[in-house]
Amino acid sequence: MYASRTDVTRALVTARVEKGVSWAEIAAVVGRSKEWTTAACLGQMAFEPHEAQALIALLGLQAGAQPWLCSIPSKGTLEGGAPSDPLIYRWYEIVSVYGPAIKELIHEEFGDGIMSAIDFRMHIEREPDPAGDRVNVRISGKFLPYKPF
Amino acid sequence: MYASRTDVTRALVTARVEKGVSWAEIAAVVGRSKEWTTAACLGQMAFEPHEAQALIALLGLQAGAQPWLCSIPSKGTLEGGAPSDPLIYRWYEIVSVYGPAIKELIHEEFGDGIMSAIDFRMHIEREPDPAGDRVNVRISGKFLPYKPF
Amino acid sequence: MYASRTDVTRALVTARVEKGVSWAEIAAVVGRSKEWTTAACLGQMAFEPHEAQALIALLGLQAGAQPWLCSIPSKGTLEGGAPSDPLIYRWYEIVSVYGPAIKELIHEEFGDGIMSAIDFRMHIEREPDPAGDRVNVRISGKFLPYKPF
Amino acid sequence: MYASRTDVTRALVTARVEKGVSWAEIAAVVGRSKEWTTAACLGQMAFEPHEAQALIALLGLQAGAQPWLCSIPSKGTLEGGAPSDPLIYRWYEIVSVYGPAIKELIHEEFGDGIMSAIDFRMHIEREPDPAGDRVNVRISGKFLPYKPF
Amino acid sequence: MYASRTDVTRALVTARVEKGVSWAEIAAVVGRSKEWTTAACLGQMAFEPHEAQALIALLGLQAGAQPWLCSIPSKGTLEGGAPSDPLIYRWYEIVSVYGPAIKELIHEEFGDGIMSAIDFRMHIEREPDPAGDRVNVRISGKFLPYKPF
Amino acid sequence: MYASRTDVTRALVTARVEKGVSWAEIAAVVGRSKEWTTAACLGQMAFEPHEAQALIALLGLQAGAQPWLCSIPSKGTLEGGAPSDPLIYRWYEIVSVYGPAIKELIHEEFGDGIMSAIDFRMHIEREPDPAGDRVNVRISGKFLPYKPF
Amino acid sequence: MYASRTDVTRALVTARVEKGVSWAEIAAVVGRSKEWTTAACLGQMAFEPHEAQALIALLGLQAGAQPWLCSIPSKGTLEGGAPSDPLIYRWYEIVSVYGPAIKELIHEEFGDGIMSAIDFRMHIEREPDPAGDRVNVRISGKFLPYKPF
Amino acid sequence: MYASRTDVTRALVTARVEKGVSWAEIAAVVGRSKEWTTAACLGQMAFEPHEAQALIALLGLQAGAQPWLCSIPSKGTLEGGAPSDPLIYRWYEIVSVYGPAIKELIHEEFGDGIMSAIDFRMHIEREPDPAGDRVNVRISGKFLPYKPF
Amino acid sequence: MYASRTDVTRALVTARVEKGVSWAEIAAVVGRSKEWTTAACLGQMAFEPHEAQALIALLGLQAGAQPWLCSIPSKGTLEGGAPSDPLIYRWYEIVSVYGPAIKELIHEEFGDGIMSAIDFRMHIEREPDPAGDRVNVRISGKFLPYKPF
Amino acid sequence: MYASRTDVTRALVTARVEKGVSWAEIAAVVGRSKEWTTAACLGQMAFEPHEAQALIALLGLQAGAQPWLCSIPSKGTLEGGAPSDPLIYRWYEIVSVYGPAIKELIHEEFGDGIMSAIDFRMHIEREPDPAGDRVNVRISGKFLPYKPF
Repeated sequence: MYASRTDVTRALVTARVEKGVSWAEIAAVVGRSKEWTTAACLGQMAFEPHEAQALIALLGLQAGAQPWLCSIPSKGTLEGGAPSDPLIYRWYEIVSVYGPAIKELIHEEFGDGIMSAIDFRMHIEREPDPAGDRVNVRISGKFLPYKPF
Repeated sequence: MYASRTDVTRALVTARVEKGVSWAEIAAVVGRSKEWTTAACLGQMAFEPHEAQALIALLGLQAGAQPWLCSIPSKGTLEGGAPSDPLIYRWYEIVSVYGPAIKELIHEEFGDGIMSAIDFRMHIEREPDPAGDRVNVRISGKFLPYKPF
Repeated sequence: MYASRTDVTRALVTARVEKGVSWAEIAAVVGRSKEWTTAACLGQMAFEPHEAQALIALLGLQAGAQPWLCSIPSKGTLEGGAPSDPLIYRWYEIVSVYGPAIKELIHEEFGDGIMSAIDFRMHIEREPDPAGDRVNVRISGKFLPYKPF
Repeated sequence: MYASRTDVTRALVTARVEKGVSWAEIAAVVGRSKEWTTAACLGQMAFEPHEAQALIALLGLQAGAQPWLCSIPSKGTLEGGAPSDPLIYRWYEIVSVYGPAIKELIHEEFGDGIMSAIDFRMHIEREPDPAGDRVNVRISGKFLPYKPF
Repeated sequence: MYASRTDVTRALVTARVEKGVSWAEIAAVVGRSKEWTTAACLGQMAFEPHEAQALIALLGLQAGAQPWLCSIPSKGTLEGGAPSDPLIYRWYEIVSVYGPAIKELIHEEFGDGIMSAIDFRMHIEREPDPAGDRVNVRISGKFLPYKPF
Repeated sequence: MYASRTDVTRALVTARVEKGVSWAEIAAVVGRSKEWTTAACLGQMAFEPHEAQALIALLGLQAGAQPWLCSIPSKGTLEGGAPSDPLIYRWYEIVSVYGPAIKELIHEEFGDGIMSAIDFRMHIEREPDPAGDRVNVRISGKFLPYKPF
Repeated sequence: MYASRTDVTRALVTARVEKGVSWAEIAAVVGRSKEWTTAACLGQMAFEPHEAQALIALLGLQAGAQPWLCSIPSKGTLEGGAPSDPLIYRWYEIVSVYGPAIKELIHEEFGDGIMSAIDFRMHIEREPDPAGDRVNVRISGKFLPYKPF
Repeated sequence: MYASRTDVTRALVTARVEKGVSWAEIAAVVGRSKEWTTAACLGQMAFEPHEAQALIALLGLQAGAQPWLCSIPSKGTLEGGAPSDPLIYRWYEIVSVYGPAIKELIHEEFGDGIMSAIDFRMHIEREPDPAGDRVNVRISGKFLPYKPF
Repeated sequence: MYASRTDVTRALVTARVEKGVSWAEIAAVVGRSKEWTTAACLGQMAFEPHEAQALIALLGLQAGAQPWLCSIPSKGTLEGGAPSDPLIYRWYEIVSVYGPAIKELIHEEFGDGIMSAIDFRMHIEREPDPAGDRVNVRISGKFLPYKPF
Repeated sequence: MYASRTDVTRALVTARVEKGVSWAEIAAVVGRSKEWTTAACLGQMAFEPHEAQALIALLGLQAGAQPWLCSIPSKGTLEGGAPSDPLIYRWYEIVSVYGPAIKELIHEEFGDGIMSAIDFRMHIEREPDPAGDRVNVRISGKFLPYKPF
């Protein structure tokens, strides 16, 4: 039995590696983008019940996984420091090196406010390139203005 | 006189606000994208001498700024923790919430390796949307594979 | 059997998700506000014995949970850093961005002292709004003056 | 002369104490709530030009303060840890003790998402009470749902 | 069986809550002050064998607890940061707010040196007060002078 | 001229050492206990105007110090970690070693709540002892109960 | 059964010590350098299936280890601080003492950019020396230039 | 005048950029390797008097720089965390990813002990490569065994 | 069975307390100094096979402990911060208070370099003293000079 | 003029390097051991007035340095983390690697308590050794027992 969402995430990750199922296959069964589905499977988003059912069937999880997959998890994976994994660190470094420039340019275009990380979507694609293929990422976040009161 | 790149960055930022010049205007004068130019002005990249000259003329900096603008700076703005500015924090949160999913999907598509933060470019655009305009960002980084030896 | 309050909190959270009981239902059975009851169920407050009994019956916990539910717990969930969960982080950001202003305004109105986080209550309500519903929170804390001695 | 927004904030805070002007008087001159005005004066928000002019006149700042008061600042005051000031710490403690309960109750009412700290307003009032006057705070933040993609 | 002092501390704390024994009752059986006895039961001090025997009998611990209760533990509960529990935090805040004043006054009275936290005792008492009862604490620590050599 | 409370604190500390005035003499002139007065002089408390005047006269500070001495400072000296000064560290160690015991005993006597660090007073005295004089400290803090709502 | 790569790493390390197999022997069986093989066995790299099979046979691991040994792990062992092990610390100290010089010299030779830690190889050799044998390390990393865009 | 080694380091770095002198030119004048000389110029090593004299003459520093250049500095540049500069971070990442493997292989070859970071030398060279030039680094550190006593 | 050196260390520590064996007795059986033997038993050093055998026999450990006792452990117990145990903290405080003086005096006597913590030995003795017995510690570490290259 | 002990320490360190005076010469003039004198000069101890006078005369400091040299400083140099200087780090590493063994052996000899870092003295000597001279350190600290109360 599962006693927490973390238990279900661990079981899901274990089952995926043992069965050799790809994230794209999981996303196809769930009916969402591969980006959202992978984040949700890794314990960051809440599934709809029928999505959870499809996931349980595909990976052979126990039935008790459903309420946990539909529960809203405690999110976030960075404990306040730099991530040690080199791939994830490169993204942290992008924020470190380009963050102040991103801030200036969004303010110049939109005024004071932020780009939402909630009303947000992201797509990751492979771009063939003779000098070495590239990872292309498109990000879209709603601009939210600060309003004086 | 300037005794360090940091001194020049501070003087540049001060002159820009006092003269009311936009980042887009600076980028046009420098002849680079607004994204790269802003990062470089904020002390993260090295200018070519003619770019530095144009910048000095536009903002009325002292001539001694040139070798510093062309020097390779010590980069990065995050001191190992979460940034306090809300706009920059949202990007840190994206890495925190979506980072493990990004890692899985790049590995699924490309195998073991990373997306380069050096052979990298980024474009930021405004997308009009009746429900609130959106910040669209396109990121492109070369995939670099781990090679066994 | 339960060996600590933490064990009971984990069992309570597990039972709530598996049985599909809402916090509002739990608060109704306990006879307290939903705000205090939820904090207490999450291991931050001590219940009265009859409240603990009602909770045990509702969620089907073991009888041994009672002394733990009535024990005074070690409180607090932030380990000295910024919380990673986006919803809780927004509250941390409010303290970061508005904290010095809150401090100035309470001092201007009351003089030197603090707003108590112990003699404290909070109510959370939904406010319908055509531009998007809002979370309304009313907080009341006793002012405690610093007294010279 | 001022070389940064921080310089202007320091000068403003110094002038306010020396002239003995209250935050409420400043807010009246600026024409905004005392909560927003105080946060803005402490370097967290951007003023409109006419607001900046009124502020400069009231406190006797130099004319060069205007572009800085209208610039969008780098925000936030918590460097990733607990604040040392007792009044501000009590708010941090509220997030630490009640944060998980706030998260659960907002999710129960609205589903997955956050309460915005950007589309946000706050009012602080004194409530007379024979057992000791109370600080009453009303907070309103727009709910922003996570949307699968 | 117990494999460490920590195991014994956990078992002791569990037994105390389940049996409903007070710290004062434990101290009476052990024959020491309630302050020292509680600290020792929480894993900070070493008991004499007959004290350990009395404790084992009172709480129904296993006989194997004795050598651990008499062993000298690894002490201290603060991992280098601020404690999250509100009651313990108030003591940390006292050190933060009054610590430099305590330092100055002890130096003014005694010269350079410290107040020992080893040759130390503490008594906690309730003082009835119509405006709200007070916690009175008397602390006594030997002064240890720095001696040049 | 002084531009902040910190400036005044530094000037006060400098003047005290240069003039060789004791904290007890300052407290006598201010008309408060030596404990409160020292904390206030070190930038932790706000003086009444006549107290500030007396202090300015005694130490030969500039007249502009008065509004700063009467302003409510940003308090606290511990930045979230252990203090390096040995005398102050001993107090941190007392909280680390005895903190959980203090928590248990106050809860046993009063129930859930805290000992206030605001409605608080402290007296430090020297106790002659042939085995080495002792620092005796009496602390009194109002008990504040958690009240369910 | 193994539920994660970490489980497999632990089992592999245990089996190696119990069977007394050297890293050089493992590398010979895997058919890679000892440097890459040891890093991979310690959970930092992904094996090819036939490499994993050879490893499982040599160390007597369970068959279920294969998909985990071929999975791409979460990498890195430093949690943002200095390592406590003296041998690994010396390498951290080399980065601390010589890092800025390494940066300057690579920039002087190549211009702005980095030495890749991904397209990277390393060989460790023993050099006999009458004054005490030496550890010789040859490192090769591809230079990656920053390109303006 | 210079009041510390840090002052001299800053002046040296400023003079080098303004005069456009390379590290290799400085090393030739000092008569040491470019690796050692650069580290020493950046404040990590002590010069011999004649080396300091040559450096002062080349860069036009004040004569008072000599005793500071010959003083033994406080060394190290990492404050216990990960470095933010991308080039230096890659070296930190090498220690993070390959550190445990380096430890195992040195122990396998030499037994218990460390590779010295004091009796240590390093050479950095450019290796032309059609797929992109490479940074080659040769490191040599004396092995120091742990000796039981 | 033991799966790591840490498992063996825990078992050894448990057996020692349960059997009531002193460190001096263990050192006599191992045939090394009490200082080295205790550090090794606590998981910091590697034993010779016959030393491990003697230890296993004395404390009744399982035979599988031998390869682990002879393996080279991951060393160090400080996780980058101040230790909480008062006895160990006093040593950390000695480094904090006297460290810069130790550095200056070793440099004055030997020039640039360090005192080795590897080629190192330590002896701890009790010195009777009517004013209170003293802990006497003799430390000897080889001086290792920095050599320019 | 000096405004703090830190100012005096900086001036003293500057004067010593410029005048080329050794710590041993300073200690001879002060009339204390070189260990205590160096620590005191580096801002860790308080001088007697005649010692301060001798120091001022020897190094040509301003007369205003005397009350600061006789004031009791805020001590300690480690901010809660590992020191970056290699020589001082080796001492931190000794505490990390040998600290638990030191704790066990002092407890075995003396019972529960600590070795004082206040009633403490230290002597550093050079021991010639054909295999490389050694740094010998003798440390003596009074044992302070924990006393139950």
